[in-house]
Amino acid sequence: MRQIYLDNHSGTRLDERALNEMLPYLKDSYGNAQSMHSLGNKSKEALEQARHQVAGLINASDEEIYFTSCGSESNNLAIKGAAEAYSSKGKHIIVSSVEHFSVLYSTKRLEQAGFQVTILPVDKYGVVAVDDLSQAIRKDTILVSIQQANPEIGTIQPIEELARITREKGILFHTDAVATAGTIPVDVKKMGVDLLTLAGSQFYGPKGAAALYIKKGARVIPQVDGGIQENGRRAGTENVPAIVGLGKASEIAKTEMAENNRKIITLRDRMISALSPMESGNGQEHPDPYGRGAHRETLPGKMEYVYLNGHPVNRLPNNVNFSVEFIEGEAMLLFLDGAGIYISSGSSCASKALKMSHVLSAIKVDTAIAQGSALMTLSKYNSNEDIDYILSEFPPIIKKLRDMSPLYAHFKKTGQRQAAGPGTDYAHAHKPEHDHDEE
Amino acid sequence: MRQIYLDNHSGTRLDERALNEMLPYLKDSYGNAQSMHSLGNKSKEALEQARHQVAGLINASDEEIYFTSCGSESNNLAIKGAAEAYSSKGKHIIVSSVEHFSVLYSTKRLEQAGFQVTILPVDKYGVVAVDDLSQAIRKDTILVSIQQANPEIGTIQPIEELARITREKGILFHTDAVATAGTIPVDVKKMGVDLLTLAGSQFYGPKGAAALYIKKGARVIPQVDGGIQENGRRAGTENVPAIVGLGKASEIAKTEMAENNRKIITLRDRMISALSPMESGNGQEHPDPYGRGAHRETLPGKMEYVYLNGHPVNRLPNNVNFSVEFIEGEAMLLFLDGAGIYISSGSSCASKALKMSHVLSAIKVDTAIAQGSALMTLSKYNSNEDIDYILSEFPPIIKKLRDMSPLYAHFKKTGQRQAAGPGTDYAHAHKPEHDHDEE
Repeated sequence: MRQIYLDNHSGTRLDERALNEMLPYLKDSYGNAQSMHSLGNKSKEALEQARHQVAGLINASDEEIYFTSCGSESNNLAIKGAAEAYSSKGKHIIVSSVEHFSVLYSTKRLEQAGFQVTILPVDKYGVVAVDDLSQAIRKDTILVSIQQANPEIGTIQPIEELARITREKGILFHTDAVATAGTIPVDVKKMGVDLLTLAGSQFYGPKGAAALYIKKGARVIPQVDGGIQENGRRAGTENVPAIVGLGKASEIAKTEMAENNRKIITLRDRMISALSPMESGNGQEHPDPYGRGAHRETLPGKMEYVYLNGHPVNRLPNNVNFSVEFIEGEAMLLFLDGAGIYISSGSSCASKALKMSHVLSAIKVDTAIAQGSALMTLSKYNSNEDIDYILSEFPPIIKKLRDMSPLYAHFKKTGQRQAAGPGTDYAHAHKPEHDHDEE
Repeated sequence: MRQIYLDNHSGTRLDERALNEMLPYLKDSYGNAQSMHSLGNKSKEALEQARHQVAGLINASDEEIYFTSCGSESNNLAIKGAAEAYSSKGKHIIVSSVEHFSVLYSTKRLEQAGFQVTILPVDKYGVVAVDDLSQAIRKDTILVSIQQANPEIGTIQPIEELARITREKGILFHTDAVATAGTIPVDVKKMGVDLLTLAGSQFYGPKGAAALYIKKGARVIPQVDGGIQENGRRAGTENVPAIVGLGKASEIAKTEMAENNRKIITLRDRMISALSPMESGNGQEHPDPYGRGAHRETLPGKMEYVYLNGHPVNRLPNNVNFSVEFIEGEAMLLFLDGAGIYISSGSSCASKALKMSHVLSAIKVDTAIAQGSALMTLSKYNSNEDIDYILSEFPPIIKKLRDMSPLYAHFKKTGQRQAAGPGTDYAHAHKPEHDHDEE
C-alpha cells in the first residue's frame, strides 16, 4: 500500500544528509563538548559549526543562538526567562490567542506568579491586528509573543509591523518561528524581533534539537540551571548529534528552501483547488452556515460542506487545513490511516482537556464543524502522485463517513443543521475580558 | 597512536546495540508520538517500550518514569517542581555540598523565590552523615536531595538510611542517580526514594534522553509547560530515537552490569594499586600535609605526593580520582591528550566562576593540590592493555610537569610547601551559617 505522510507540522522526515552528519557523533565522536581533550574539542567544534549554520539561516550572529532540546523548551525559556529578567520593569505580557500551548501555558504559569497576561484576538483568518497590539500595550508591558505563522491553519502574521510597535516602546518581542524557520525566509534583523524560537524537527532536522535566538543585549533567566553550557543560559550536556543535525538541516534549508517551496506550493494549491472551486489565494467567500462570520469556503467540487481554514494568501507553503462538516475527525483519521494517508486533526500537542483545537476556536469555527478538521501539511518529499492518490481516496472516505452520520442524515432530510455551540475558546475562556468579537 | 578514553563520567560511548535500535527512528519511523496514525503509533509504542525498560532498570512502574532531555533537566524538574508543588507545606530544602550543579543552582534559584536551603557538609571521603540530616530537618522541610554517588570522587552515599529519616517525617526524598543508574544496582523501592534522576549518556545510551522517576502520588510542577506529553509533566515533542536508545541501554545495563563491573573494578583497582602502595579499599592514611585532615593517601610507588580522593570502599566501580601535587591540571590534561589519553580534571559542568571543583572543596582538599586533579573514569570498553599504557605514560608526564614547576623546585630545595589557602567552597561560601567543620 502506498504510504503518504501529510503530518509534517508534527515533525518531518530527517534529511539523509543531516543524518549522515550526525552519525559520527553517535559513533566514535562521543566526547562531551565541555571536556578538555581532543574528543571533547571535536564535539565543541561541531557545536560551534552548528551554531554558525543556524545563525546563518535566520541572519543572526553565532553568539545569539542558544541550543535547547525542543521548540517547547525554547518557548518556555523565552517567555518565562524574559518575564523573570524584566519583572522589575513590569509584569504585563501580551500574546495572541493562536499561540502554541508552550507559549500559552508558560504565560498561565506566570499568571500564578503574579504576572498579568493579555491575549489578543485574531480575525477569521487567524491574523492579529496591529491596532489590537497597540491598544493592548500598557506602561508595565515587558514582553509580547506572537508566532510568525500558525502551524495548524498556516496563517502568517505581520511580524515586522507588530515588532515595530514594541521596538518603539522598548518592549521585548518574541516570535515562535517553529512553523516557519527552515520553511520560509526568516530574518531576525528584518523582522526586528528580540527572541525567536526554532526547531529542527520541523525542517528535516532531528528531534531533540531546537534553538532560541536571543538578540545581543536581551536578558533571559535560565530555566534549566546548572553547568555553564550555552553561555550559562541552558545547563545540561549538549545533545551534540542532534545539534549537528539541526545545523546541517539549517544549511540545507537555506540553500534549497526556495526551490522546495515552488514545488510544495504547487502541490498545496493543487490540493486546495481540486477539492474546491476557488483559486488559491483568491477564494470567493460563502456565507458561514452558522452566521458567525468565520472564513468558510464551500467546496462543491467533489465534496460539499468542506471549508478552508486559515489565510488564503498569507499562508505557509505546506499547509492545507479543511473543516469537513458532518464528520468526526478521529474516524476520518482512522479511515485515512487505513488507506496509508497520515494526516492530523489539529495540534499535535492538543491537551486532553481541550477536545477542540484552540486555534479553530480562536477563528470562531463552530464546534461541530471543527470536529472534522483535516490538517494536511506537505514536505519536500511529497510528489504529484501523492496528491493524485489523496484526491482519489479522500472524497470516498468522506462520503462513507457521512453516509454513516446521523447528523448528515438529519441535514439531508430536513435541510437543517442540528444545534451546535461555539467551541471552547482557550484564550477567551481564561481571559473573558478580551472576549470581544472584531467581526 | 593509541586512544584511551577515561572520561566516562562526562559521557560514555553509545552501545552499538542501542544505536541500532535508534536508527529506524532516525530514518523511516519519524512519526510524532502524539500523532493519531500508524507512524505516530509506532513512535508511541517505542516510547512505552523504552519506559518499560527504564522502569525495569530501577524497579519502578512504567507510569512512574518521565522522560526529559538530560540529567540536568531532570534535576531541575525534581527540585524546582517538588518545591513548587509542596510550597504551601513549607519552604525549606536540604541538599548536600557535593551535589551536581544542576541541583545546587536549582536550589539557589529557589532561594531567590523565598525558599531556604540547608547544605549538608560531607566528611573527608565525601559522605553525608545521617545524623547531620536528622538535625537539619525542620518543621517546614519539604524536600531533601542527596545524590546516590558522586560522579567526580565516586563516593556512594547511604541513601537507604538517609531516605528512611525523611520517609518517617513525610518529607520528599530526591536522589540524583546520574552517576549510578545503569552503573551499579539502583532499586527505588529498596532505597525508599520519591524522586530519582537518571541519564542514558552515562551508561552507553545516547545524549539527549534522561528520565525522572516520580513515585506514584508524589507531586511535581512541570518546568516545561505546553502539550500533554509525559502525562502533562514535560511538554515538547518526544525525542523518540534518543529515548529508544535510553531504553535499550537500560535493558543492556540490567543484564550486563554485574559482569561489566567485575572487569571494571579489576581495572580500577589495578590503576589505584599500581600508583599507590595501598590495597584498594584498605588504604593506610597518611597525614595531610596541610593539616586539614582531608583524606590524602601518599602514593610513593612510582609517584610521590599523589592523593586518592573519595571513599576507598564505597566507591563507584569506574572511578579513579587522584590529586597530583605540584601540578597544574590543565597542563596535565594537555600532555595526556598528546599521548592519546582522555581524562578530566573535575566536573564536566564546572562553572567558569569556580575554578576549583566544589566537590574537592567540600572534602577540604587544599586549593593548590586540587589544581592537579586527575579524574579517570572507566567503561566496559577499557582493557588491561589500556591500563598498561596509562601506567607507562602517566608517571613520566607528571615528572616532566613537575620538573617545569617552580612550586616543586621550591619544595625540593626547602622541603617547604608554598602557602596555599583553602578552596572556594561553593556550598559553604553561599551558606556561611553552615560552614562548620566536622573534622
